[in-house]
Amino acid sequence: MKFACPQNELNAQLSLVSRVVPARPSRPVLSNVLIKVDEKAQQITLIGFDETMGIQTSFKAAVEEPGELTLPAKLLESIVARLPTEDIVIQETQENAAVTITSSSGEYEVRGLSAEDYPSLPVIEDGQVAELSIEALLEGLKGSLFATSADETKQVLTGVHLLAEPETLEFAATDGHRLAVVKTSDESASQDEQDAKMDVTVPAKALRDLERMLQTYTSSEPIILKFDRTQVVFELGDRILTTRLLEGQYPNYRQLIPKQFERQITIDRKLFNDALERIAVLADQKNNIVKLSLDPDQQSVAISVEAQEVGSGREVVAAQVTGDALDIAFNVRYLLDGLKALGTNEVQLQCNTATSPSIFIPLGELQMTYLVMPVQIRS
Amino acid sequence: MKFACPQNELNAQLSLVSRVVPARPSRPVLSNVLIKVDEKAQQITLIGFDETMGIQTSFKAAVEEPGELTLPAKLLESIVARLPTEDIVIQETQENAAVTITSSSGEYEVRGLSAEDYPSLPVIEDGQVAELSIEALLEGLKGSLFATSADETKQVLTGVHLLAEPETLEFAATDGHRLAVVKTSDESASQDEQDAKMDVTVPAKALRDLERMLQTYTSSEPIILKFDRTQVVFELGDRILTTRLLEGQYPNYRQLIPKQFERQITIDRKLFNDALERIAVLADQKNNIVKLSLDPDQQSVAISVEAQEVGSGREVVAAQVTGDALDIAFNVRYLLDGLKALGTNEVQLQCNTATSPSIFIPLGELQMTYLVMPVQIRS
Repeated sequence: MKFACPQNELNAQLSLVSRVVPARPSRPVLSNVLIKVDEKAQQITLIGFDETMGIQTSFKAAVEEPGELTLPAKLLESIVARLPTEDIVIQETQENAAVTITSSSGEYEVRGLSAEDYPSLPVIEDGQVAELSIEALLEGLKGSLFATSADETKQVLTGVHLLAEPETLEFAATDGHRLAVVKTSDESASQDEQDAKMDVTVPAKALRDLERMLQTYTSSEPIILKFDRTQVVFELGDRILTTRLLEGQYPNYRQLIPKQFERQITIDRKLFNDALERIAVLADQKNNIVKLSLDPDQQSVAISVEAQEVGSGREVVAAQVTGDALDIAFNVRYLLDGLKALGTNEVQLQCNTATSPSIFIPLGELQMTYLVMPVQIRS
Repeated sequence: MKFACPQNELNAQLSLVSRVVPARPSRPVLSNVLIKVDEKAQQITLIGFDETMGIQTSFKAAVEEPGELTLPAKLLESIVARLPTEDIVIQETQENAAVTITSSSGEYEVRGLSAEDYPSLPVIEDGQVAELSIEALLEGLKGSLFATSADETKQVLTGVHLLAEPETLEFAATDGHRLAVVKTSDESASQDEQDAKMDVTVPAKALRDLERMLQTYTSSEPIILKFDRTQVVFELGDRILTTRLLEGQYPNYRQLIPKQFERQITIDRKLFNDALERIAVLADQKNNIVKLSLDPDQQSVAISVEAQEVGSGREVVAAQVTGDALDIAFNVRYLLDGLKALGTNEVQLQCNTATSPSIFIPLGELQMTYLVMPVQIRS
């Protein structure tokens, strides 16, 4: 293989792919990036794969000789990142499975391993296809990813559930204590209802990488999803992210959301958030519990914390309160996580009693429901 | 106690002091900050102390009632940092050793401990006094701190040695592998030779905090040093840093620096540094060793690395080389540390043989000597 390309291009592509390369691989070759050099297409393809999730990216380069090889991903990325911003040449040496990297600053030789031992990325042959706009995908990920479980033993709860219905795509995530559901109205989501009956759970880890890839995706073309029962592939133009799906039945979360609420509180999201962040300093010292006192007479919410032996705090934020007065307590971290994702200027808290599920919804275009279970308090 | 002051002022002063408050204190009261409220002077004094090192700072406030109290440093800092930018009121409650913090956003109560149990900062009574310009102090610290040892068992080597001579102050640090010496020409350093015969070793930890304090020191008044055999106090206007000195004889480092050199290489610092950073990627994979090949014919230095089974690299940087050709090897981390501190556009490497101490000096006003022992290589 022999090709030349700009340093900043190769650097960006390597950073993208090496993100998925495992730090402690099950086989040595998996700590490498696979480089495929295509002379006819004048194109380079890089692949990183940890046997669960893979990223592939292609870009144009001046190819003189085709070839395939794997090279240590982190090492190659570290060297290329420090080279001057100019064209650099990568050429296979006569010795097997090694390349020289030449720039005006000098010459490096890096040893790799044969491409033969590198596993192929999973291919979806008889799967289904859907298209998603980048806006819908980003909105869904932002509103759900934070609520997934970090506990690997919780299986399906470590992922985001994607459920397609005619003209909508629903993102849901829960860790057992709170639930976030975002409904995106995406007309391109299911071009053919027969084809795209999507009902899959995608690992949060892969979706976080997808979110980062979307942030540098400049095309206005929709993202293409291909999936079968075990795999999903996201195609972003020349970039591909593939991951194994999480197995198991996702909880029937819709039945958890109450249909009616006795109380409704509309509040400025930033004021509410800032007060909670101050109260959280004391709440974090004990059990994270914060008490909200809904006051329909004063049209306000008092936010208070009582951290025995440490201190206490109380703030009052103006709000539109309908329904009777109520004291209700929550884990302050769950409230702060939700308020960050809700995004709109105003949010609405809807609740029934101090022990029944409450929801937060944004007041705006975003269709999101964030359900949190209150914490019982002695009054 | 009762006083009012702007949130941003209190926040800045608390961050300064809480830096020294230990995370795992030997006694509970040491995780607190001591607050002294002086009605007559309309002044607040904050003190943090870990029994080795202390920081004290004073600032003006609207004092209504005097008093003394200790409060949990990190907790208080966290709450104050999140309050709105406006005047806040701190008032002792009727209950013992607690305060309320009141701002427009709400009211917080924080419990503390009596000031009686808080240890006093060490006072220097019969010590000596010196004055240092802020520039000289910063120059000395930047050029020496990085070369101190991080190994707590190495005692005096974990500090910087300060040696005053008429009109100069010398900063020296060594970890046993390399030595950095900065001579600052500071006319204010010893106003009275009798008084200020400074020959002390100050812990690096305290000096790093001093360096940070100097960065926000806006006055042009010199820094006052007071010291005796066991303690040193740095006075920066309203702020004081005090620390125990390191005991034991500091090595006689001057005798380590060769008087004459057979070879002299002048090289662009940035080009040399950038090449070393790239070479370091491979050197770090093995033993950090980088080889410099001094070439008087080509007037260049070739920088190379050979990391078996991983790869190799070679760069050539133009340089003025006097003396015979020589291959000499160093720990690349020591070279990079030194080049960062040397600061000037050009630096000079002076050496004799491949196994004798070499020095780097800046070409400019800074009077610094950085000595590094070469590493033996098989040729």
